[in-house]
Amino acid sequence: MSFDQLWSALEPVGRDGASGGYRRYAWTREDATLREWFAGESAARGLALVEDRAGNQWAWLGDPDATPGIAVGSHLDSVPDGGAFDGPLGVVSAFAALDALRDQGFEPGRPIGIVNFGDEEGARFGVPCAGSRLVTGALSADGARAMRDADGTSMADAMTRAGRPPQHLGRDDETLRRVAQFVELHVEQGRGLVDLHRAFGVASAIRPHGRWRMDLPGEANHAGTTSLADRHDAMLGYATAVLAAREAGHRHAAVATCGKVRVHPNGVNAIASHVTGWLDARAAAPEQVRAVVADVTRVVNDCGGTVVEESWSDATAFGRCSDIVAMLDDAPVLETGAGHDAGILAAAGIPAAMLFVRNPTGVSHSPAEFAERADCLAGVDALATVLQALAR
Amino acid sequence: MSFDQLWSALEPVGRDGASGGYRRYAWTREDATLREWFAGESAARGLALVEDRAGNQWAWLGDPDATPGIAVGSHLDSVPDGGAFDGPLGVVSAFAALDALRDQGFEPGRPIGIVNFGDEEGARFGVPCAGSRLVTGALSADGARAMRDADGTSMADAMTRAGRPPQHLGRDDETLRRVAQFVELHVEQGRGLVDLHRAFGVASAIRPHGRWRMDLPGEANHAGTTSLADRHDAMLGYATAVLAAREAGHRHAAVATCGKVRVHPNGVNAIASHVTGWLDARAAAPEQVRAVVADVTRVVNDCGGTVVEESWSDATAFGRCSDIVAMLDDAPVLETGAGHDAGILAAAGIPAAMLFVRNPTGVSHSPAEFAERADCLAGVDALATVLQALAR
Repeated sequence: MSFDQLWSALEPVGRDGASGGYRRYAWTREDATLREWFAGESAARGLALVEDRAGNQWAWLGDPDATPGIAVGSHLDSVPDGGAFDGPLGVVSAFAALDALRDQGFEPGRPIGIVNFGDEEGARFGVPCAGSRLVTGALSADGARAMRDADGTSMADAMTRAGRPPQHLGRDDETLRRVAQFVELHVEQGRGLVDLHRAFGVASAIRPHGRWRMDLPGEANHAGTTSLADRHDAMLGYATAVLAAREAGHRHAAVATCGKVRVHPNGVNAIASHVTGWLDARAAAPEQVRAVVADVTRVVNDCGGTVVEESWSDATAFGRCSDIVAMLDDAPVLETGAGHDAGILAAAGIPAAMLFVRNPTGVSHSPAEFAERADCLAGVDALATVLQALAR
Repeated sequence: MSFDQLWSALEPVGRDGASGGYRRYAWTREDATLREWFAGESAARGLALVEDRAGNQWAWLGDPDATPGIAVGSHLDSVPDGGAFDGPLGVVSAFAALDALRDQGFEPGRPIGIVNFGDEEGARFGVPCAGSRLVTGALSADGARAMRDADGTSMADAMTRAGRPPQHLGRDDETLRRVAQFVELHVEQGRGLVDLHRAFGVASAIRPHGRWRMDLPGEANHAGTTSLADRHDAMLGYATAVLAAREAGHRHAAVATCGKVRVHPNGVNAIASHVTGWLDARAAAPEQVRAVVADVTRVVNDCGGTVVEESWSDATAFGRCSDIVAMLDDAPVLETGAGHDAGILAAAGIPAAMLFVRNPTGVSHSPAEFAERADCLAGVDALATVLQALAR
């Protein structure tokens, strides 16, 4: 099946008519549709479909329990109103690269697996790369089961409703043992390749990053009858924290973002009794990120609030980067500020690598995210080349 | 039927199990249940139920088309996680006061009407007192039909789904002609009566107040890969506006509140591409409110955003205040910063008055809002006294 056919089948799933963006969140109906699509493509190729303890899908050619294999893939979920490429491009390219190799008559010397990692964006329960963190043990089963979405539904309940018993969550050594190496292709989330005039590149490292939850307390009361002196308005503390985060980002040469907020009760004439905000912070070195969080925590504490770490990913270098570059005729090398499942596996000791495909807008996590068809096909070729070299 | 029985029937409707607060929004299932309750109480008393063009419910004793009558009542909807008293206390007290007068054998000399105004809080579509504004023409039919809730549903669609054809919306002179005078009993939204050691009081005026929508633009992008210099983050503009509103409130001796916000796409690792916030501002004089809005508008404009007025209510004096005070043995007189349907009717030239019942917490628009049973019963007695004097 061609890249275009694979791509068009995914395009309508979870797309919002008004914004044109995608809403594909873990363990929802849209997620189930994407998983069915993956299972169908696996079956059509005669691959053996396995779901690991966290519900990540693996489609294997050959027996990875006999010989560990080469896995390629990415994720299919999205941020709220995300673009079409972040995640799906890597999964579609994996199927297309395998198809191309088989069409050429390539006989792999070891198993090849295509993977769809669940809940990579963490849009619903707050922890990104939840699927890969769970199988590697970076996220505890108890911690994951207890995480709640905006409606108060726990991950355990969401998994149960989706037909996945959450009692099996936990580090999954059986799955990890099957993976000799993992390669993830992803749309670039910046304009590095645009500036280099190259269709694709290889990732050298993921910068350290994390997300923190800020809880700011207040007291519910009427906006019209409560004097300024008598009120305890949680929104003021939140606004102060947002501005402090930006200042701290500048101060420590980091990026700091407050992109998500939940206000209670969120009424025009009701003083906010509680605001929960999230801080995303990243930098070249972990110390810079920690300094940002320390500055913001001081401000939030001064407002009577608390800051709790929801996830942390250390700097991750992709050790096989130079090998991959050699396979691809000196492809350019890029560092990235975005987290990926490849980074989680690398941190767990599984050799991992990433390919990036040029994004002309440089925009990511938005419907404006894009990749030209020709660049996507060049990415598939590059992935096939790497896969062929590794699985020979 | 006793006050307690009336009260208990309403208590469970739209109550959230977790917060203990109420979520009773216009043209929802909860709203329909409340309207059925009102219709049932009307029928049980042999009153003639009429819905006006805006869907407000009127239960009449006697023929108000022959002689204009005395209307008493309030509303049954709530803010998000509001208290049990704001609105329902006035409607329940109206039924209880009528029951008490009839038990005493009182024969009214003119019609008596009990009213349930719809959508007083404006929690769903953004404009408070939408029901009374529509019948008086203060809110245009076209404007109301086009208002949308957070899910994008228009008021026209919401009314249609609730079985109320929205094409009948518009100023309703037939309804207004029936009302010689309106008296609204309401829980106090402050501690004025607590400080005076009095169970109830009479309102002299409603302060000028309004609400404004602030739209702050941004550009969606990835929180990890977009440099601070390259990003256009709508959340920063919003935070600046929130702090500016508080400062402007202090500067102009007003109250200014940002209690509601909607963020797009609202993802932890997505830079906000659009933030809509609401400003509620009130003061003793309209000039003070206008000065607050002008200051905030300047700040929002500097961030590339816009500010639009969603509602405005001028200062409203209750002209019959001294008559009512005389009927109630020199009850104390209070001014209020909260808007009410009584204020909308008074502004439209219908003589209106308000009674307040003591609220020991002083808190309002919150589950902590409260009134002692003895004070509620004193309120019913006071309302019955006023009703008897006016309808004699």
